[in-house]
Amino acid sequence: MTELFLQSIRKLVEFTPEETEQFLSCLKRVCIPKKSFHLKAGEICTSVAFINSGMLRAYYTVNGEDITGEFIFEGNWISDYPSFLTKTPGKLYVEALEDSELFVLDYNKLQWLYTQSQNSERFGRLIAENLYIHLNNRIFSFLTEKPEDRYKNLIKRRPNVAERIPQHYIASYLGVRPESLSRIRKRMAAGDIS
Amino acid sequence: MTELFLQSIRKLVEFTPEETEQFLSCLKRVCIPKKSFHLKAGEICTSVAFINSGMLRAYYTVNGEDITGEFIFEGNWISDYPSFLTKTPGKLYVEALEDSELFVLDYNKLQWLYTQSQNSERFGRLIAENLYIHLNNRIFSFLTEKPEDRYKNLIKRRPNVAERIPQHYIASYLGVRPESLSRIRKRMAAGDIS
Repeated sequence: MTELFLQSIRKLVEFTPEETEQFLSCLKRVCIPKKSFHLKAGEICTSVAFINSGMLRAYYTVNGEDITGEFIFEGNWISDYPSFLTKTPGKLYVEALEDSELFVLDYNKLQWLYTQSQNSERFGRLIAENLYIHLNNRIFSFLTEKPEDRYKNLIKRRPNVAERIPQHYIASYLGVRPESLSRIRKRMAAGDIS
Repeated sequence: MTELFLQSIRKLVEFTPEETEQFLSCLKRVCIPKKSFHLKAGEICTSVAFINSGMLRAYYTVNGEDITGEFIFEGNWISDYPSFLTKTPGKLYVEALEDSELFVLDYNKLQWLYTQSQNSERFGRLIAENLYIHLNNRIFSFLTEKPEDRYKNLIKRRPNVAERIPQHYIASYLGVRPESLSRIRKRMAAGDIS
């Protein structure tokens, strides 16, 4: 049941069996049915959560418009990390697009884990570094790439997005209107965009 | 000579005297004269650097346009962190706007420090977390605030920006043309914007 979780951890750090046990003992299993919310803007996010199965969409609402920040699939972590770290109200909505099973780790438990071993600190550092790299890449993609290039890169690098995410959410992720994404897809199908 | 550096470290972690000594022994003092570059886009960034005195501007060039990412003053760290972490060519130019003295910490030395103590890992985690929070706030400011609000908040929160940075760089940081910033400043001086 925790195999995916352990695989994900092993990519970052080599926990001892005791450290692994300690980490696992801090997790709480939570099920989020499709279309339900895991996080809501305005509330303080008090946990990070590993997605053991399912998929969620994280989005912001800016001037009444819905901006998709990220799609998060099984095997990854989800949090409103700035809210979690600063204990201030979050800006993120996180909604399950599929029935999802999460392993939730509360703020106090994570802070306690950090005090328990150098490996736990390393784990936290690498998670934060990866988040920073990802956010930076996402900004750069917006600053420097055309929407059609963003779309091509997205479906190339993350085929599960094309397979499992409705088109209007992909449009929102790319920062274009659904009708623009339709045009891009038609031009790609016609071979106008390679 | 290292008092500012030690103060900055103490805000994040409580190093033992031995850990502090270890950290200090890894630093290399580098002077960057005004208008010289500390980092250039296209090159792999191999260090993080603490600014002991002076001030630098980090910027990107996108479609021939210069976008100011950040102004970094004494007491803070500067790096092209995604390039540093992934060992890929950087996107950032970092130019000294004042004569600057840096304490430079090379990649290998930092990785070695991380292996030496839990406190070093903690230091790295907190730095990465703070960078993430800062980048996130910056994006949100762009998504949700008008240029005049971004300007007001900037000079309120960081008076040294208004005092030490030329107006055209402030405009580039706010994502507006210099003439738009002039208009905002005039309206503020006339009391049209409180």
